[in-house]
Amino acid sequence: MSYEDAVREVDKRQTKFIERLREAVEIPSVSAEAARRNEVFRMVDWTQKQMEALNIKCHQVENGMQTFPDGSAIKLPPVIFGQLGENKQKKTLLVYGHLDVQPADLSDGWNTEPFQLVEKDGKMFGRGSTDDKGPVIAWLNAIEVMQSLGIEIPVNIKFVFEGMEESGSEGLEQVLQAHKSTFLADIDWTCISDNYWVGKKKPCITYGLRGICYYGVEISGTKQDLHSGSFGGTVHEPMIDLCWILGQLTDVNGKILIEGLNDSVAPLSDEEKELYKTIDFNANAYKNELGAEKLTSECPQQLLMNRWRYPALSVHGIEGAFYGPGAKTVIPAKVIGKFSIRIVPNMEPSEVHTLVTNHLNKLWSQRGSPNKFKVNAHQGAKAWVADFKHPHYQAATRALKKVHGIDPDFTREGGSIPITLTFQDITEKNVMLLPIGACDDMAHSQNEKLDVSNYMNGIKAFVAYLLELGQL
Amino acid sequence: MSYEDAVREVDKRQTKFIERLREAVEIPSVSAEAARRNEVFRMVDWTQKQMEALNIKCHQVENGMQTFPDGSAIKLPPVIFGQLGENKQKKTLLVYGHLDVQPADLSDGWNTEPFQLVEKDGKMFGRGSTDDKGPVIAWLNAIEVMQSLGIEIPVNIKFVFEGMEESGSEGLEQVLQAHKSTFLADIDWTCISDNYWVGKKKPCITYGLRGICYYGVEISGTKQDLHSGSFGGTVHEPMIDLCWILGQLTDVNGKILIEGLNDSVAPLSDEEKELYKTIDFNANAYKNELGAEKLTSECPQQLLMNRWRYPALSVHGIEGAFYGPGAKTVIPAKVIGKFSIRIVPNMEPSEVHTLVTNHLNKLWSQRGSPNKFKVNAHQGAKAWVADFKHPHYQAATRALKKVHGIDPDFTREGGSIPITLTFQDITEKNVMLLPIGACDDMAHSQNEKLDVSNYMNGIKAFVAYLLELGQL
Repeated sequence: MSYEDAVREVDKRQTKFIERLREAVEIPSVSAEAARRNEVFRMVDWTQKQMEALNIKCHQVENGMQTFPDGSAIKLPPVIFGQLGENKQKKTLLVYGHLDVQPADLSDGWNTEPFQLVEKDGKMFGRGSTDDKGPVIAWLNAIEVMQSLGIEIPVNIKFVFEGMEESGSEGLEQVLQAHKSTFLADIDWTCISDNYWVGKKKPCITYGLRGICYYGVEISGTKQDLHSGSFGGTVHEPMIDLCWILGQLTDVNGKILIEGLNDSVAPLSDEEKELYKTIDFNANAYKNELGAEKLTSECPQQLLMNRWRYPALSVHGIEGAFYGPGAKTVIPAKVIGKFSIRIVPNMEPSEVHTLVTNHLNKLWSQRGSPNKFKVNAHQGAKAWVADFKHPHYQAATRALKKVHGIDPDFTREGGSIPITLTFQDITEKNVMLLPIGACDDMAHSQNEKLDVSNYMNGIKAFVAYLLELGQL
Repeated sequence: MSYEDAVREVDKRQTKFIERLREAVEIPSVSAEAARRNEVFRMVDWTQKQMEALNIKCHQVENGMQTFPDGSAIKLPPVIFGQLGENKQKKTLLVYGHLDVQPADLSDGWNTEPFQLVEKDGKMFGRGSTDDKGPVIAWLNAIEVMQSLGIEIPVNIKFVFEGMEESGSEGLEQVLQAHKSTFLADIDWTCISDNYWVGKKKPCITYGLRGICYYGVEISGTKQDLHSGSFGGTVHEPMIDLCWILGQLTDVNGKILIEGLNDSVAPLSDEEKELYKTIDFNANAYKNELGAEKLTSECPQQLLMNRWRYPALSVHGIEGAFYGPGAKTVIPAKVIGKFSIRIVPNMEPSEVHTLVTNHLNKLWSQRGSPNKFKVNAHQGAKAWVADFKHPHYQAATRALKKVHGIDPDFTREGGSIPITLTFQDITEKNVMLLPIGACDDMAHSQNEKLDVSNYMNGIKAFVAYLLELGQL
């Protein structure tokens, strides 16, 4: 039995594999919504059942409690540790993925129910289809195919599947640190499929990620919301204070105005600059895809660097104010502005926290408002960069060439998978990101999807990659 | 049978009257939420049934369609026209009230389910308890009491009850104009109970209201929401543009920065200034009640003027951005900032629209953002001031003295009941606001309530007022 047999077998099982993903998408495992926490637990149990059917030994590691700013607390979902093969003669691959998803609601502008998998024109729409249920299940499918054909898996595989990635992977780092010298003691490589190709057609391998620092700016004025007719003109409105602050964090072109923040950004080396020249990226197509009038640069390389290797600040929204359609005449009593900064080497989250807090406090003291002001800094995540010349990357390159017929791009990503760096630190071995989804998959957005072809090719790529690892 | 008999009968029927209000509060007739429009219709039907049980002749006047900015449309609730008595020898009072309520959700910070009437310590909590279901039903209760005791109602009464007041009374003005020479041809006075006492103990009669101009500032950048990791740094974020705009509409003390806006505010006359000196208003108690650190003035008269006779700008919220608890890493594609200006004599909504639009356009051109920008001006409502020396006001003063033992304050209100002015224009007769709720009733806010004592005294006041009108 050969790689080619596996390819045919993957194709033969397409319907079954799509049904497996459908089941997963139908579990609305939104980690950011406390009310749906039970769905994350359900997703963890469902996944373990799938794994055990493939003879993967699983156990759920408890992950303690999540405490909210208001003092309330709920249970964190357990982490699944899985193990397939314990052959001391073989090397060991660690596969990480996450089972939770971003919030989604039909009213946000989805064309279909977000927690249903809807196939249309070769695309599978649904929350989690590409981030990250598709890739997780692609791994299970790849193993099922190899087992069913009797193809020997030439490495031991360990799995870490968590349920809090979309909420800062809370608790995971402690869980991993606690198992550094046991479950995670003998890892040779780590592979994570939780990002996307730069384009839609050419595969890539990713060697860098931005980190993230997330903030809540809380301003409160009165005990409770007020009628703007009865009270407007007598109170200092927290909402106006907040907008005043949030509107001054960047200039109109996104340049971050927080003093000192750009000082620790790693300078661009000539070697790194060179790397960008070969990447297949069409700035104009990207702009049109987004539907933007203009981007922060017209140069494709600069644009990629703005996404990957420079910091960016986004204002996500405001908690506590009126948010519905129509007209409500309220003066919100307490509002929390949410913004985050994507950080890059060599920015340190703790230094960023200090700079951000100082800047916000300075703005607040300039403002001179009598309202109450508080900055909540969520746990930060450092940026990550790996050595893309490592044999592990070369093995994956050969695997992708087998599936797609071309060499992949070597890329970075703008998003944050904080745990990447943790795996690198704990295993002290090479970590690689091996995406299977395309640039237009719209993770975190409305109408998230995964192309059927990418799903199937992803399964094939995992098979080819496992076979290549056997050669190292 | 005398006024005193009526007072005893009101007290005897307290439980029944509270149950009647309970039924009304349990209908979540939120006019701002399209999904609850059917509840407004249900509330209209429920009210008509109550009225018909008192032999009030009713008919529902169709009110056309409501069209939303996105082009969709739903039916507006009908207006109830009611008539009790057609004696040509008697004068005719017009009573107006509204059956719809502001949005409310337990998660907003209510201590009890907003659409249940919960009695505690002499207060009845529930959305609409005081705004405006309590007063509407108090009218029906007053009539029930007089009828049950065989007390002749010395005037004809006409009723106009609508279901869109919290959404700008959409359609009502056209309905009223269309019935100017029929149903509304023979009105001698209009009485509206849709506001609140200045304090908690002393009744008042209200002779002035601010108007309102409500705006949506719509900024859009991309076709859909984006993942801030994957796209942050390449797009111009509408949310940051919007905050920049909304933070510059007033200074920190609420002074409106829109050029020319204060020019048309009526100057303060000495006579008017004098009126404020006798009003029972404790600025410090007001501040403590609100839980504010500091207000826009420490002088009680100035504070009342800031509420009643000067314009005020409030920013209510943002549609389209992240609003939940927790951390979502989204770049919203399209955001709509909602703000309103409470306007006063002699500001004209059309002039305000021009000034606001010019100011926003000017800010936008200063901003230099490539995003799309649009200002939606909702229908404006003029401010209203009446002659408080009119015999109608004197009759109500005597009625309130009968119930409460003291002369009421003559006050204005910061809120807008746009239809007040319409009634004055159409009937060409005196209009009066006769509030029954207290200053801490928290209309439009969490934990809206009406004190049982105010509800009962309100019913008595309506009886006394009807008897006084018979003397005019």
